Amino acid sequence: MKFTEKIRSRMHEVGNVLVIGLDSDVEKLPKKFPQNAHGIYEFNKSIIEKTGDIVCAYKINSAFYEAFGPEGMITLLKTRDLIGDLPVIYDVKRGDIESTAKSYAKAVFDFFNFDAVTLSPYMGSDAIDPFLNYKDKYAFVVCLSSNKSAIDFEYHGTPPLYAKVAKFVDDKNKKYGNCGLVVGATVSEKLLEISLMAKESLILIPGIGTQGGDVETTMNSVEHDRILVNVSRSIIFSEDPSKSAREYSKMLSIMNSL
Amino acid sequence: MKFTEKIRSRMHEVGNVLVIGLDSDVEKLPKKFPQNAHGIYEFNKSIIEKTGDIVCAYKINSAFYEAFGPEGMITLLKTRDLIGDLPVIYDVKRGDIESTAKSYAKAVFDFFNFDAVTLSPYMGSDAIDPFLNYKDKYAFVVCLSSNKSAIDFEYHGTPPLYAKVAKFVDDKNKKYGNCGLVVGATVSEKLLEISLMAKESLILIPGIGTQGGDVETTMNSVEHDRILVNVSRSIIFSEDPSKSAREYSKMLSIMNSL
Repeated sequence: MKFTEKIRSRMHEVGNVLVIGLDSDVEKLPKKFPQNAHGIYEFNKSIIEKTGDIVCAYKINSAFYEAFGPEGMITLLKTRDLIGDLPVIYDVKRGDIESTAKSYAKAVFDFFNFDAVTLSPYMGSDAIDPFLNYKDKYAFVVCLSSNKSAIDFEYHGTPPLYAKVAKFVDDKNKKYGNCGLVVGATVSEKLLEISLMAKESLILIPGIGTQGGDVETTMNSVEHDRILVNVSRSIIFSEDPSKSAREYSKMLSIMNSL
Repeated sequence: MKFTEKIRSRMHEVGNVLVIGLDSDVEKLPKKFPQNAHGIYEFNKSIIEKTGDIVCAYKINSAFYEAFGPEGMITLLKTRDLIGDLPVIYDVKRGDIESTAKSYAKAVFDFFNFDAVTLSPYMGSDAIDPFLNYKDKYAFVVCLSSNKSAIDFEYHGTPPLYAKVAKFVDDKNKKYGNCGLVVGATVSEKLLEISLMAKESLILIPGIGTQGGDVETTMNSVEHDRILVNVSRSIIFSEDPSKSAREYSKMLSIMNSL
């Protein structure tokens, strides 16, 4: 099954577009969990048990696993197994020449069997195509990010670089059918503009919560069956992740648009 | 000891600027090595034994290790241990928001104890600074890459994006003292131009050999004590890696400029 079918099926099943980001930073784990790779696994297990019934998808940020070397990869593998058949995006923002990109794609899709990946556009087509060759998988290319220093390069030129990336993604999606965008919720005024540049692409939207992005503005910007809204720290490190996830899932409800 | 001191000391010791890239793609290993993570380790061991006496530094490309999950990370760790005190660059081209970048930096510098890293500039300062805070380490930011699709974005705007990145790296290097550039040998006509935009930065130059970059043009473009020239496949997958490394080390000799 193609990722677009899998994710839309899950959207309709749970009635929301909430992605929970397992940015399981060991320094922020509640004290009852050991401050090591196994602690991260136990923490993820508790989050997945508390939220698996209502979440649309999970996103796993590789940085917090790589910091523990081989043990971090074991935690990653075990976490991925726990998630099972629910859609799961591997957030790695990789970008390198073709021979390297092929090997990254093997890691993401063949070894770990993630459903989708995030990529960096800087080096162009060569860095993206090897992932798109996996027809049932999906790649989200960073277009306009949620962090303050997005202004350093992403607005450079006329048209701005982010617009050039959006056009590039649209071309890729027309050719391959499995290429989308990452656009931060902190720049929700740009969401509509960008969504019109790549009309058939899915948009992964991080930056809600801790990073300051607004849910309502985001939900009013783009058709609901094209967006996936990621919330990480505001759910997983809240006092009651189950309650917090349910609150966000309601804010990100698409019941009215079904 | 700071990386700039460590690498210049080694340059003077061996009299060349050759970096050997351990892009140990399992599909390209000679048949006597098992086609798995352990085979990669045995292959790396043979390369390091054959070249450690004359190489200026090694570069390890994470993609070829990540493709094997936890076992790949064990191979990475064991390879890093084999390299010991020789300078070693971890080629990962990471780039993400600050909290994530901090965790990537932990992986690269705290866990694996690499001397330097390659990074992607797309998301700006937030993605770079956490690495520069490790004062004795070094970060090479991708400026103009060696692949064909570098034209997709790196030349965008006026001034072109790559020039904006070079200026950014120069500013970072003036502030932190440990920020350099990646510029492909395949665009050696741009090397001089870029080197003048960031006069104190080291430049890591991939793209020699298989990718088509020319050694002589590269060596005539920039002062020799500022460059590190990476050769990967043309050495490690040659019939005689020891001989091939020695040939490249002569072509990349800086004896005349010492």
